Order: sequence, then C-alpha cells, then structure tokens
Amino acid sequence: MRMVDIIRKKRDRLALRPEEIRFFIRGYTEGEIADYHAAAFLMAVYLNGMTEEEMLVLVDEMLHSGEVLDWSQLDGPKVDKHSTGGVGDKTSLVLAPIVAAAGAYVPMISGRGLGHTGGTLDKLEAIPGFDVGLSAEAFGKVLAECGMVISGQTAEVAPADRKLYALRDVTGTVESIPLIAGSILSKKLAEGIDGLVLDVKVGAGAFMKKQADALALARTLARIGKRAGKNVVALITNMDQPLGTHVGNTLEVIESAEVLKGQVTGDLAELSFELAAQMIALGGKAESVSAARELVDDLVSKGVALRKFQEVIAAQGGDPQALEDYTCMPTANKSEQIESPARGVVQRIDAEEVGVAAMLLGAGRGKVDDVIDPGAGVVLHRKVGDSVEAGTPLATLYYNEQAKLAEARSRLSGAYSIGEEAPPPAKLIHKVITE
Amino acid sequence: MRMVDIIRKKRDRLALRPEEIRFFIRGYTEGEIADYHAAAFLMAVYLNGMTEEEMLVLVDEMLHSGEVLDWSQLDGPKVDKHSTGGVGDKTSLVLAPIVAAAGAYVPMISGRGLGHTGGTLDKLEAIPGFDVGLSAEAFGKVLAECGMVISGQTAEVAPADRKLYALRDVTGTVESIPLIAGSILSKKLAEGIDGLVLDVKVGAGAFMKKQADALALARTLARIGKRAGKNVVALITNMDQPLGTHVGNTLEVIESAEVLKGQVTGDLAELSFELAAQMIALGGKAESVSAARELVDDLVSKGVALRKFQEVIAAQGGDPQALEDYTCMPTANKSEQIESPARGVVQRIDAEEVGVAAMLLGAGRGKVDDVIDPGAGVVLHRKVGDSVEAGTPLATLYYNEQAKLAEARSRLSGAYSIGEEAPPPAKLIHKVITE
Repeated sequence: MRMVDIIRKKRDRLALRPEEIRFFIRGYTEGEIADYHAAAFLMAVYLNGMTEEEMLVLVDEMLHSGEVLDWSQLDGPKVDKHSTGGVGDKTSLVLAPIVAAAGAYVPMISGRGLGHTGGTLDKLEAIPGFDVGLSAEAFGKVLAECGMVISGQTAEVAPADRKLYALRDVTGTVESIPLIAGSILSKKLAEGIDGLVLDVKVGAGAFMKKQADALALARTLARIGKRAGKNVVALITNMDQPLGTHVGNTLEVIESAEVLKGQVTGDLAELSFELAAQMIALGGKAESVSAARELVDDLVSKGVALRKFQEVIAAQGGDPQALEDYTCMPTANKSEQIESPARGVVQRIDAEEVGVAAMLLGAGRGKVDDVIDPGAGVVLHRKVGDSVEAGTPLATLYYNEQAKLAEARSRLSGAYSIGEEAPPPAKLIHKVITE
Repeated sequence: MRMVDIIRKKRDRLALRPEEIRFFIRGYTEGEIADYHAAAFLMAVYLNGMTEEEMLVLVDEMLHSGEVLDWSQLDGPKVDKHSTGGVGDKTSLVLAPIVAAAGAYVPMISGRGLGHTGGTLDKLEAIPGFDVGLSAEAFGKVLAECGMVISGQTAEVAPADRKLYALRDVTGTVESIPLIAGSILSKKLAEGIDGLVLDVKVGAGAFMKKQADALALARTLARIGKRAGKNVVALITNMDQPLGTHVGNTLEVIESAEVLKGQVTGDLAELSFELAAQMIALGGKAESVSAARELVDDLVSKGVALRKFQEVIAAQGGDPQALEDYTCMPTANKSEQIESPARGVVQRIDAEEVGVAAMLLGAGRGKVDDVIDPGAGVVLHRKVGDSVEAGTPLATLYYNEQAKLAEARSRLSGAYSIGEEAPPPAKLIHKVITE
C-alpha cells in the first residue's frame, strides 16, 4: 500500500477501505508516514469528507493507537461529557459530582486552557493541594472510591489524535466534521466509558457559528458513537455570550460551588443540570431524562452533590474547605469596574473578547508555557437582555498584574453592545440529538 | 503573513493576493515554509483551482525563483516547443533543426526519461560524443553559431518548480491545471524565449485522457503565456498510440534522421512538421502557418534541415556521421518478433505498455539512477488501422540483456488489440488554440 494512492483516492472523492485508513493512522502515529503525506491527506478529507463507514474506522483506529482504559471491574455505568468549548464553561465541575452522587461513574480526563478558552485542570488547580496529575493507579482508586475523578492523562491515550491535531492546527484542517469526530470520540472512548453526552456549542462565541453546522456535527458524533457501541446523546446549546458570569480559575470554582449550593440560577445552572440529567439517564440511573432531572434537583437541594465534590477534592489531595471559605483559594488584589456608557439593553456580549480579556489579566495562556494567575479573571454583572442605565456596572476585572490591564479593559468594554430594543430571547438548549 | 492563513484562504475557495503567492513560492524555495504546509496548500489548489490572475503571479514567481536566460544580444526570434509527453515522441529532434534552418533560434533545455517515457537528452546521447551537459558559455556559443542547441540545465532554472514537482509527485497533486501551468511555463520562459508552441497530448497514452481536460489545459497555458508577454500556440494532438514506430534511444535518433531525409511519412513526420511550422510562424520567419509549412517541406526536401542537425551534432561534440551510418550508434545484439495471433485490424496499441516494454529491455529507467542501454527498444511494424493476417509481424523487440525479455514480450503483445472491424479514423491534430 502506498500513501500517495490513498491520498489520490480521497482527492477523487472515493471512499477508503478500512485497511487504507488503518495504514494511514498506524503509519503516521509510528512516524513512518511523513507530515507532508498526512497534510495533503487531511486537506483532501477536509474538502471531500468521509462516509460514516470511513469515520467509524477512523475513530476505531485512533482510539486503539494508544491505551484504552477498562473499568469493567467497577459495577455500574461509566459516563462522561464532552463540550466543543466555550468561554466561562465550567459545567464539568458542576455535573460530575451530581452524576457521581446519582450512582454513575465519571472517569473524566481533562486538559488545560489555551488562548481565550479555559481548561478544567487549570480551574481545579485553584483549589489548594488539588492534584490533577494522578498516576494510573491513583486515578482508578479515586474513581472507585468516589465514583468520579478528574485528572490529566495517566497514559498515552489516543496518541494518533495528539499528532494529527498538531498538524491540523498548522494546515488549516481543524474545522472538518470527520476529523473532529475522530478526535473527540477517540479520546473520550479511550476513557473506557459506556455513555457520552456531547455539548455542541453554536453561536458567535462557539467554534460552530451556524446551527446547520452544529447540527451536522452533533448528528455525526451521535451516529458514529452509537455505531462504535456507545450510548451517545448530543445537545446543541447556545454560546452567543459567555456561560454563567465568572471567567477565571478561582472565580469559576466559586461559581460552580454556588451552583451546587443552589445559590445561583441562570444559564450555567440550567445547562449543567440538563447535561447531568442526560448523563444519569444514559447511565440508566433514572427511568427517563425528566426523572433524572428531578433526581439532580434533589441531589443539589439536599447538598449531596456539593459534598460529593468536597469528597473528591479531598481524595485528590485538595482542601475541601475551599468550597466553604473561598478565601482559601488564590485571589486578586485589585479590581476595576466597567460601566455602561448609556441607558438601554445588553444586545450581545462577545464571548471570545471576554475570554481574551481574562487571559490578558493572567487567567489564561497566550502561549503553551505561560504561567497562569489563578486569582485573575472577569465577573459579568449584566448579561444579554438585561436593562442598564448609563453608569450601571457591567463587569469587574480582577487582577494582580496590571501590565495588560488597559488592553483587557478595552476588550471587555468592546465585548458589550448596548442598544435600545430588547434582543429576541435566545434558547439555551436548541436541540437534543439522540441519533 | 502566516502560511496557515494562506492555506485557509485557498481551502475556502478565495483568490489569493499576489503577495500571498509570492510569500509561498519564495518561502518554500528557500526552505522557510515546511513541506507539510506546502502539501496542504497544493491539495487545496488541486481541489479548488486558481484564477488566471493567481496563475500569472504563480508563473512569474516560479520563473524568477532562479536564473532567467537572456538572448537579447542574438538578432532573431527565440522559440521553443514543449510537449506534455508521450511514448515514441521524438519531435524535438526533428523540429529543432528545421526551425533553426528557417532562421529562428531554438534554445532548448531538455530532460531525461523516467518510467515509460523517454527523455530527449538520453536519445541524443546515443550519438557518440554528443555532449548534453554544456556549460552556460558553451550553450550560448552553440546557439549563436547553429541557431539551436539542446542540452540539460546550465544553471539553476526555476528551482521552485524542481522542489514543488517533487512534492506534487508524492502528494497526488500532479494533475492540476494551475500547477501544471506554473511548472511548464516557468521552466520554458526561463529559457529566455519569445514564443512557445505547446503540444498537449490527449488520449489513452497521454496524461490527459479526455479532450475537455486537454482543451482546458491548452487554453489556460495559451492565455497565461500570452499574459506573461509571450507568443503562445497550443496544439491538441492525439496520443492513443505511440508516435511514430521506433521507441528506444538509438532507434529514435534513426527514425528522426529518416524523417529529416524525407524517407518516412506518417504521424511522426506530420506532427513534427506542423509543430515546426507553428514555431516558424510564431517567430515571424514566415507570413502564415501555411507559408511556414511550405518552408518546412522545402528545408526537408533539400536536406537543409538534416545538415543543420549534423552541424549541431558536431558543435556539441558528437559524430555527425551517425545520421548517415546508423551503425556508428550503439545497437542491440539480439531481437525477437511478435506476431499477430489472428486475422483482423489493429484496434489500439497501448502506448504506456509499449513504453514499459522498451524500458524493461533497457531503453529507459525504472528508477532515477538506472543505467540506460541506448541500443535497446521496440519497433512497431503495424499501427492502429493496419490490416493483419495471423502470423503477420506486429513489432520487434531489440535487446542485449534478456533478464526482463519475457515480461517485455508479454507487455508488448498485450499492448496490441486486434479486432474485425476497422476502427474509426483518429485525427492526429485535434485543435490549434491561440488563446
């Protein structure tokens, strides 16, 4: 088999045979196929697509390029959630404890943030002592004891994806449904789960700007996941503005704790609870999604979910008091408010600009090796649809270093659009796709 | 400027700005842009195409990636021919002496053969002493004295093409009109010519199998060449079977000499004379193509063209007697005939298979560093449309080494199809495209 023939076939819109896809994934992962071969192939896939049969083989081969975890010794369903990413999205911190409290296992392997989006591991590290670098053994032990665990990779999971993602990033081949499906599903299925809930964001602040594109991706992910033998549900959710009100690491842990305490309502609580209910239903720990949703409300209102989160924090070496006394976590010494320049209604809040503002304050990384300031970030006081007067506080910037404060302030101000008319109400959850 | 943004633009079917194309060609030629960037870009160009404006910049930048020869000190038109390649195509050896004898300069830079196609330089090296590795100075001296010269590159001509061609070959991006135009025109215009006649082959034995594709390529080459300030004419010619009857190096020199002596008629003579007439007319050495064609016939019938070829052979260190006494050239010791298995009419002769048969006998290279046997090759006794009886000799294989004789014989036999009905007559020259 020759790579040039495989490239030509995809270039000519022909479907590849399973052994051709396997030849590419194995050869590229092992360094036998050159980057230039892979680059030409990825562009041909980007422009000409793949059939479902091809995608299924792609996912399977990428999944088996590394270690696949096995939790069959644990008696109970294993479920997880994956989001296509957004600013202020801390749903993992809220839903994992709820789902674990409901009796399903959540073996969550997470990553770090880059650019305007945050990373779950960075957020958890705001909690003093919390260890996100567990060994394979410790990972399994926490999962078995607490019903959940959140950590970085314990082993070489889906190395094909790591290599391919780096190449897609520099060759303009990221936004391709077959390649996204291969990447997401191979990594998540390597966690050894039975069920997966996908949160596909759509809107100005999301990777997918159009509903039709998000729908196509969600449907593909659901179908391929099912054909790979997993229970998969995909939600299409709105990301026209940041999710919740807090952006930054300590700030996002605080907001998550408040949601688990039932102190906060709004889009973050709504989406986290809905995703949790879907995971619980998928794992068979409730008879229906609506029954699961009642269970979620119960677990939150009785404080069971919050205690579960504290239990996991302790099991991963962190200080569970952090969720009671937020000053245990690193905070910012300085803050500054921005105010509405006029009377009116908030029309939109550009999520990416809010993310960049928080990054500039130190909450995120511009480059992979930048050091994060856990205390820095942004809190939004007004969201889309809220009425304001001239001078009403819109948001607060929290910072320790003021080197990039001016740019962050200008970005955050620019992220808000104030207008006269109330904008049409936006649905938070557009659709639930089960196949 | 970042290469990934240029790739994304072409991926999204947008036209590139001149500086973006220049950034790519310069950066890639100088090794600053990686092969994987170039590979993704080439596939995007292959699948999404380029506008004429983009192609014009591509040709210009590739042309100026190396040395551009300048013959302005020579008083007269400078013209050349380029063919998209075919088996048995030795028109260069016939037409260059005719055109030079008509008073136009032909500064021909040629290459070597690979696979089933032969190379002009390999053919000329069958003539004892003929030097195809002239220095820049010697190249200019022969051109000035004889009005023509045929040699390999004297300087780094269009290095961007050399690098890009090697990458296209391994990434399945060869058959792309913009990339072919960039490659052909940059190399030919670097010869410092005013006019170019293109021989675009179409048919079973050609790179372009369909008339529509050949027409599109011919039109693009003619238009881009003109917009680059050159006189360009493109002929679409038939390559359903090998051109002429001889395939192999000494054998092709012999056939060319026979044509120049007026001893041979048929497709090779017809095409060579027509291409020569087009070149002469393009160079302004005749008032019209038909007047040029009369001049060609005159130059051949009076032996002027043959003497011009002998003059050039002598100027490039070769033995001009080779064209009189063919035994001066290396010959094959052994030969074997293949015969028709049945009575009928020759339906087709697969040009590629004939080329491979000749290569297997030693006339060509399977790999770049293979050594050629100049005496080896194939002579076809019957061509498409000829009637045969069972046992009529179809072709003869000439060889010194019989290691691959059996495979060559089987390929050559298989190349012939004999049927009952006479096939529809095929036109040799389908179209002449001037813009």
